[in-house]
Amino acid sequence: MVVHVDLVADVLRLEEQMIMKAVMEWARVRLVNLEEEALPLGRINADAAIIRPISMHRALYAASSYEASMVFTVNTSSTILYAGDKMLSYTRLIAHQIPVPKTYYASTPTAAAKAGAELGYPLVIKSPIGSWGRLVVRAKTPEKLAEFSELRRMLPCIQQRTLILQEYLEINNTDIRCVVVDGELVGCVARKARRGEWRSNVALGAATKPYPVDTELEDLAIKAASALKGFFVSVDIFETKSHGYLVNEVNGVPEFKGFMKATGKNPAAELSVKLYHKLHQ
Amino acid sequence: MVVHVDLVADVLRLEEQMIMKAVMEWARVRLVNLEEEALPLGRINADAAIIRPISMHRALYAASSYEASMVFTVNTSSTILYAGDKMLSYTRLIAHQIPVPKTYYASTPTAAAKAGAELGYPLVIKSPIGSWGRLVVRAKTPEKLAEFSELRRMLPCIQQRTLILQEYLEINNTDIRCVVVDGELVGCVARKARRGEWRSNVALGAATKPYPVDTELEDLAIKAASALKGFFVSVDIFETKSHGYLVNEVNGVPEFKGFMKATGKNPAAELSVKLYHKLHQ
Amino acid sequence: MVVHVDLVADVLRLEEQMIMKAVMEWARVRLVNLEEEALPLGRINADAAIIRPISMHRALYAASSYEASMVFTVNTSSTILYAGDKMLSYTRLIAHQIPVPKTYYASTPTAAAKAGAELGYPLVIKSPIGSWGRLVVRAKTPEKLAEFSELRRMLPCIQQRTLILQEYLEINNTDIRCVVVDGELVGCVARKARRGEWRSNVALGAATKPYPVDTELEDLAIKAASALKGFFVSVDIFETKSHGYLVNEVNGVPEFKGFMKATGKNPAAELSVKLYHKLHQ
Amino acid sequence: MVVHVDLVADVLRLEEQMIMKAVMEWARVRLVNLEEEALPLGRINADAAIIRPISMHRALYAASSYEASMVFTVNTSSTILYAGDKMLSYTRLIAHQIPVPKTYYASTPTAAAKAGAELGYPLVIKSPIGSWGRLVVRAKTPEKLAEFSELRRMLPCIQQRTLILQEYLEINNTDIRCVVVDGELVGCVARKARRGEWRSNVALGAATKPYPVDTELEDLAIKAASALKGFFVSVDIFETKSHGYLVNEVNGVPEFKGFMKATGKNPAAELSVKLYHKLHQ
Repeated sequence: MVVHVDLVADVLRLEEQMIMKAVMEWARVRLVNLEEEALPLGRINADAAIIRPISMHRALYAASSYEASMVFTVNTSSTILYAGDKMLSYTRLIAHQIPVPKTYYASTPTAAAKAGAELGYPLVIKSPIGSWGRLVVRAKTPEKLAEFSELRRMLPCIQQRTLILQEYLEINNTDIRCVVVDGELVGCVARKARRGEWRSNVALGAATKPYPVDTELEDLAIKAASALKGFFVSVDIFETKSHGYLVNEVNGVPEFKGFMKATGKNPAAELSVKLYHKLHQ
Repeated sequence: MVVHVDLVADVLRLEEQMIMKAVMEWARVRLVNLEEEALPLGRINADAAIIRPISMHRALYAASSYEASMVFTVNTSSTILYAGDKMLSYTRLIAHQIPVPKTYYASTPTAAAKAGAELGYPLVIKSPIGSWGRLVVRAKTPEKLAEFSELRRMLPCIQQRTLILQEYLEINNTDIRCVVVDGELVGCVARKARRGEWRSNVALGAATKPYPVDTELEDLAIKAASALKGFFVSVDIFETKSHGYLVNEVNGVPEFKGFMKATGKNPAAELSVKLYHKLHQ
Repeated sequence: MVVHVDLVADVLRLEEQMIMKAVMEWARVRLVNLEEEALPLGRINADAAIIRPISMHRALYAASSYEASMVFTVNTSSTILYAGDKMLSYTRLIAHQIPVPKTYYASTPTAAAKAGAELGYPLVIKSPIGSWGRLVVRAKTPEKLAEFSELRRMLPCIQQRTLILQEYLEINNTDIRCVVVDGELVGCVARKARRGEWRSNVALGAATKPYPVDTELEDLAIKAASALKGFFVSVDIFETKSHGYLVNEVNGVPEFKGFMKATGKNPAAELSVKLYHKLHQ
Repeated sequence: MVVHVDLVADVLRLEEQMIMKAVMEWARVRLVNLEEEALPLGRINADAAIIRPISMHRALYAASSYEASMVFTVNTSSTILYAGDKMLSYTRLIAHQIPVPKTYYASTPTAAAKAGAELGYPLVIKSPIGSWGRLVVRAKTPEKLAEFSELRRMLPCIQQRTLILQEYLEINNTDIRCVVVDGELVGCVARKARRGEWRSNVALGAATKPYPVDTELEDLAIKAASALKGFFVSVDIFETKSHGYLVNEVNGVPEFKGFMKATGKNPAAELSVKLYHKLHQ
């Protein structure tokens, strides 16, 4: 029996090409380009859909369109959303007793000032949506918090105006990215911010190297993936002196170029194998 | 034992005042004004939170902040989101075999043109987020669809650029709004668009009158509420000649001023009673 | 002969009411509400139009619509624009040898960083359009400048993304506002920022008191008004220890509530008298 | 004596390369890339600046920065602005008795409806800023005008929300583009919209061919350029049966690739010669 897998994307990065190549060994793969194709809700024929648009909301809506047709999705719309929106990530992780940085939700500068008074300074300001370190700033004083909050208020989209306030943690400008597929850890890398930058996003120049896995880290990454029901996710973890490991972020459409280079492991191949088993159970 | 209920809002409309009055009969109610208060994720003390901000995303983030603290929320963040985002509503309703209008998801004008060719004209163009009929237009020709899609593309937020395309249904410019609390139907009203307007939003001048409930309508409203796990929702239903009843929308933070006036029923009191029982189970 | 004066506005503040009252003593005044009225370009009958919309662009387009009909406008579209856009104000003032703070134009964060290296820190970041101190922040370090520039880049309108960088001047958080009508100074007030705020905008809580006029100040205010061909403008001036008086801003649709209260003078009456003479020359 | 000419740009299109090549024959040309360079107001050394950024506002602010330093600019900030903003173009052209389509300014949907009632249908809706036919739509009924106006209202920038309403003219989907340098006509081309598109923008697929110049057309193009004090501009003209020639648009940073191809004439060389004479007068 032929298995039909749709690969849904808007740009074909190295990641998508590798996934396609791996899955084509056992399935008929159709590339669905969201720049050109509309999806009929509830009337799509496929056995599975691998959801890879860069835009979180395109990924979300594509996944949900497939789910209306009872197609198995990697990841599900729910995982994409709860990973892609940091407010939803943190609240769900906390509800699953997974340690995260101390966090407040504020919808106005006035509310943010109150959160700042409780958190102390410096503190970190984030937005629910946004990749590659965008909209992440550090405020050292209440004045700076006020200035940033006011600027944020002028952004046009509600998610850009939403303020997530967090304690600033000493982590030596490093975080650990772990890739998890179907409940198993593929590996971990450390990402260290470039000099003069405190945010450890690869897009902002961070360097990547393999990170030795211990049981505690492995358990945490798998637990975080599971809390968001992620089939194929990356989990970003801070190692802090004061609180040990803390989950900072989960990614529902993970990029893994840097991870591959640093570890020699191939998440695309892992995903392909696990998906094969899932569909042939 | 004193029960603590937080009423979370940004504006106190008649609805919020009535809910507060009803719940104060059996609980200590604290008003949480999101314009001024920040919410500490995972560290809020309350037995329940009634989530009433006008902005969908504020409601979503407030609910999830409470859920991180294991507080019972009406509605949950998941209900608020799957009701508030029409793409997620339609896909989830379809996955639960609930009839909705024939719908396509398109993320670009090119994709929309393809959906239009399959749906035929006139068709209706919607956006995932947006109340009161905003961003809902009807296109009679491919040219109009192209012009609207291009205009939408210039809107700043991804959800405003997302195109939902639907068959246009002859419903005499009327829809039926049903209020459901904890799996029971409170009642239904019909909303008829004012002359010269085809959208039946009260905000656009629609008139409201009681609508006689039949079993099919009751079942459908309850099923739709249940598909989105809504504790207190309104369900908007079309009665069409061609397809019978179709669910058009679910609201997770329902307004009910017009409903009360037309039916003499009090959804705030119903909500209060049901919530009391929920918390004293 | 009856003189016809149009008062063009969108909101009737105290200022507009006072102007209307004064001008009605000698002219037939028609109130043109831009919320409701369209203007036919080149086909408006009036002897003069007093332009008072709050939005700078509405004021600009209303004035230019009248000018297409050869109607005398207070202020002209050119004055409204060159006053309302700080980039155009500074460049025109400089071209007229009027002293202003040392200023750079930068259209990207990279360009802003270069300007910062030349200006030194702290510096002030402004935007061409924006009243009441909005988008005005102070950066004490290159890092803060980078963070603010990056945030600005996410704003949707080109003018909001445009960066004006200025030396930070010690002026004791005070500026001097002078009102000029048809080449004559009506008076000056000092505006001192409220405690904890360095920007001296009344909208941000600044207090207002009369300021004793000297010849140098008077000359500068009149020269600045004249450089922008303003018939009725306010001129904001800094008194600095290092550079003496510097013009910081000109307003082409001046508010004067605070000015009246502090000085007892009535700019609306002054405007009315000067306009009468202009039209009866 | 060496002449110093700055070429200010953000992208080097064919046009900029040709201008640079021509001017380098007699001047030392410095390329100023606004993506990277900040401009110090009033302290730039150059004999002339050729202003070529694609973004109208970058061009405007760059030109004005040079003018603060008393540098001759092609075009001046004033020309760039009055050409780049259609509201300012139309009003200034009308003030100079130059024929343009019948036009209304409306700042709200209510105002637009009134203009529509006076203009009749179909009518054309435009925005003050915007190239390549963007935001230009045709409404055949008051309902379509209402829908477009409401959509426009949701755009984030004031200029995008501003409504210019015009009579729809039968011009066989063709317009005439004339290039004028220092008061002399270089030539004209006709641009005919591709099939299925009524807007004659080359960016929307229009075809270009030479257009035989007559005295009336030549006079009109030169008069329009002169009304906006343009040194190097293109003027877009409609030939209508009912009203003869009408000026539709002036461009202050003209593209001329298509013009060159169709006419064999070289506007870059013309500009270079005229600029040489200007600076050596």
